[in-house]
Amino acid sequence: MQRHFDTELADLKKSILNMGSMVETAISTSINALKLLDKKMADTVISNDKAVDELELKIDEECLDLLALRQPMALDLRFVTMAMKITTDLERMSDLAVDIAQRVCEIADEPQLKPLIDIPSLAKLAQEMVRGCLDAFVKEDPGMAKSVILLDPEADDLRDLVQKELIEDYMIKDPVTVKRAVRLLLIARHLERICDHATNIAEDVIYMVRAKVVKHRAGALKNGT
Amino acid sequence: MQRHFDTELADLKKSILNMGSMVETAISTSINALKLLDKKMADTVISNDKAVDELELKIDEECLDLLALRQPMALDLRFVTMAMKITTDLERMSDLAVDIAQRVCEIADEPQLKPLIDIPSLAKLAQEMVRGCLDAFVKEDPGMAKSVILLDPEADDLRDLVQKELIEDYMIKDPVTVKRAVRLLLIARHLERICDHATNIAEDVIYMVRAKVVKHRAGALKNGT
Repeated sequence: MQRHFDTELADLKKSILNMGSMVETAISTSINALKLLDKKMADTVISNDKAVDELELKIDEECLDLLALRQPMALDLRFVTMAMKITTDLERMSDLAVDIAQRVCEIADEPQLKPLIDIPSLAKLAQEMVRGCLDAFVKEDPGMAKSVILLDPEADDLRDLVQKELIEDYMIKDPVTVKRAVRLLLIARHLERICDHATNIAEDVIYMVRAKVVKHRAGALKNGT
Repeated sequence: MQRHFDTELADLKKSILNMGSMVETAISTSINALKLLDKKMADTVISNDKAVDELELKIDEECLDLLALRQPMALDLRFVTMAMKITTDLERMSDLAVDIAQRVCEIADEPQLKPLIDIPSLAKLAQEMVRGCLDAFVKEDPGMAKSVILLDPEADDLRDLVQKELIEDYMIKDPVTVKRAVRLLLIARHLERICDHATNIAEDVIYMVRAKVVKHRAGALKNGT
């Protein structure tokens, strides 16, 4: 029974990492579409979102089966329920990649406003944070989770930098740029929101692992050990 | 045992509705702060976010205890795990109210750009959708969930209306308004994102109730009934 459960947990971890990869791909594809002003590429992000939605339901069903059939306790129980919370976050991140792709479609017919430097850096950071928080989750490693949380101020700074430049160097100086600049500003904010979700997951990982320690201690105290 | 479980489920429903009320209050307070350009009021939204975060952890612990001690099955299992997913969404909504409050703090020292009409309407709609999706959840009512989903296009339209007006009537025409207009535009988007979360919850409610029917049918087929 335990061996079966271990295999099922390993499968669950794989599914979560797989869903994470899909989100990472959605982020990188949407930013490539932005660099190339490629509507078709942006459309693939929008149409692939359905697969992410379906994977959320599939993983949630796997988790429900695990809970119903194996009735896991302690850290295993926390792990499985947290997996279900993480699918919610990943699905929302995919929605944000769709938001980026929609902004790309809105500006694809117009000339590029400026060479893109900080937005691709922010996108890379977002991907790194998504990968990092999921690795921390499957490895149940609060140290790794901590490093993801430490990246969040960098994401905020990059977003602020993009916003400041777009407002002061473009929108205020040249009203013709306003519409395109607003889209770029929103893209930076969508990316930073993805980083927020990754930070939230990382915080939950730390809580998940710590709560185990606390519970364990409480049990030990109750048993007089 | 069943009576205990029913009481615990009723308590869980109360806690979720309570967390929902806190989010509704955060939305209305942030928008009142915007109307009055009142930084102190905005600050209360920011400082109250901690209580929402703590309630998320508390409800999740209640759910974990229910899962560990009562080992619920079928719809009850779905209900308890969905409660844990909903706390994630509610916590993110509270973060969005904080985002609104932060924008208010940024513009509070400057004169009001324009009389606010559509943003308060959008805020009211967001509150209605938050209340609606949680009512649908605790009553396990897919019909109520459906009506929340039907409100989402209205939220999108209001956001687009606000955005169009700010860009075309203010930012393009008068560069002096750009900074304030960007903040207002972001506030409309934060509100619309709250509506998206409510829509996602409503969709999950429909799935939760329908999956029960599907599972029930599968069981009946297996048993040859």
